[in-house]
Amino acid sequence: MPNKSFKGKLDLLWNQNKFVCVGLDSDLDKIPKSVKGKAGERIFKFNKAIIDATYDLVLAYKPNSAFYEAEGPDGLEALKKTIDYIHKKSPNVLVILDAKRADIGSTNEGYVKFAFDYLKSDAITLHPYLGKEALKPFLDRKDKGLIMLVKTSNPGSGEFQDLEIEGKPLFLKIAKNIVKDWNVNENVGMVVGATYPKELAMVRKIARDIPFLVPGIGAQGGNLEETVKAGADKNKKGMIINSSRDIIFASDKPNFADLARNKTIELNQKIIEALK
Amino acid sequence: MPNKSFKGKLDLLWNQNKFVCVGLDSDLDKIPKSVKGKAGERIFKFNKAIIDATYDLVLAYKPNSAFYEAEGPDGLEALKKTIDYIHKKSPNVLVILDAKRADIGSTNEGYVKFAFDYLKSDAITLHPYLGKEALKPFLDRKDKGLIMLVKTSNPGSGEFQDLEIEGKPLFLKIAKNIVKDWNVNENVGMVVGATYPKELAMVRKIARDIPFLVPGIGAQGGNLEETVKAGADKNKKGMIINSSRDIIFASDKPNFADLARNKTIELNQKIIEALK
Repeated sequence: MPNKSFKGKLDLLWNQNKFVCVGLDSDLDKIPKSVKGKAGERIFKFNKAIIDATYDLVLAYKPNSAFYEAEGPDGLEALKKTIDYIHKKSPNVLVILDAKRADIGSTNEGYVKFAFDYLKSDAITLHPYLGKEALKPFLDRKDKGLIMLVKTSNPGSGEFQDLEIEGKPLFLKIAKNIVKDWNVNENVGMVVGATYPKELAMVRKIARDIPFLVPGIGAQGGNLEETVKAGADKNKKGMIINSSRDIIFASDKPNFADLARNKTIELNQKIIEALK
Repeated sequence: MPNKSFKGKLDLLWNQNKFVCVGLDSDLDKIPKSVKGKAGERIFKFNKAIIDATYDLVLAYKPNSAFYEAEGPDGLEALKKTIDYIHKKSPNVLVILDAKRADIGSTNEGYVKFAFDYLKSDAITLHPYLGKEALKPFLDRKDKGLIMLVKTSNPGSGEFQDLEIEGKPLFLKIAKNIVKDWNVNENVGMVVGATYPKELAMVRKIARDIPFLVPGIGAQGGNLEETVKAGADKNKKGMIINSSRDIIFASDKPNFADLARNKTIELNQKIIEALK
């Protein structure tokens, strides 16, 4: 029987040498003009074209919910249709809902219902600030991936994340607690930005078996080779390397999906090279 | 011309001796059976009854988006209709969207559009972990309230929030940065839980002029008198005291709205007494 956990599904994809996650940051203002229709319709049509052109190459898609919520119920419907379409197109490719949620205790059950029961995502990104106890409704979901924001890719992420606790940065303390205490169901992942390769290596050192979602290469400035070397686990796997704008908005011409495919192939190839 | 900032609107309401925020945690499973219809319809009907019974008494309503998102687009529509109805019923009562969001940089523009342009909330709750730089699209909104999670009310909030940075807990360092550096537009608020009155007093000591959203009295166990004494500012104001379940689910009988009104009057009266 195949391992149906998030980690088990990732292992299958890594074994096929797939490392790229396409970030579906489908900002309505940036979708090529050739994609016509109302707001939600344009978003879905655009995503569908990207998925059709890349689903055989990728590990995961990562729709960021902000871009969908911006359009209200139409956006939400486009998000739901997008995720349904990914699952229909390929039973193996994973969907990571980049929603950066976290409330206290039972309130999180609403988000669990939204992300997993309604949208049928395979994983969600979460803020760790409220602690493990608050996130129990998420952590109890053995079948899903719970990906914690540890060291984020933005230039100002150090304001709190780098503060020293007994001589070590806060992000490392958070990573330690996650490894030691949060991951009893082996369903936890971590977000560590490619813009901080040194910190990425520090987190990998203590989180040997945890999948990393790594945003920040390309437009944000992260160096791919450094990132891959810093973030790989002992099996030269363990990373979900995200690229959003560089792939989905590679062109604003009607051939945008072909270019997205080329960019995805190129990125995955570069990752494989860097892993050697 | 009246002051149209979030803080200015709060001042007007505090001057009317209003301190209660009703948390519209309108969990479909807990709505009285006498409220009939489909999911979204039941939520809106229930909220409408609560609003009709309490709008002349309260400072604010705080719908927690988790309960609405759980129902997909129907829930989102109920949320939109609820907020529209509050604004229609009273131009003064504030709407705090308890969404606990925070992404990096321009991605937050999607959430800004969702919370302020689409839903027309007056304020939103936010996670501080990504730092000020990440939250710029929120902080730039001079007309809105940006309420940061500082010390949350849940039992396990100390896991990271109480970690010591140079002898002081992390939540206090976050509060300090917010006071010193984040509040240039005087539009920032803080969430500090009633379940931690000592910590509430510590935050008030350094954040003298900042509105506090205080959840955690009642069902969560916070003591009202202690809370009010710890959290009041020098003008014996400065607090948005939230109560959710104790008010909205005061009864599961058809007279639930009358009981919600009684509970709201009682709570506001107790706050006024405690402030003396």
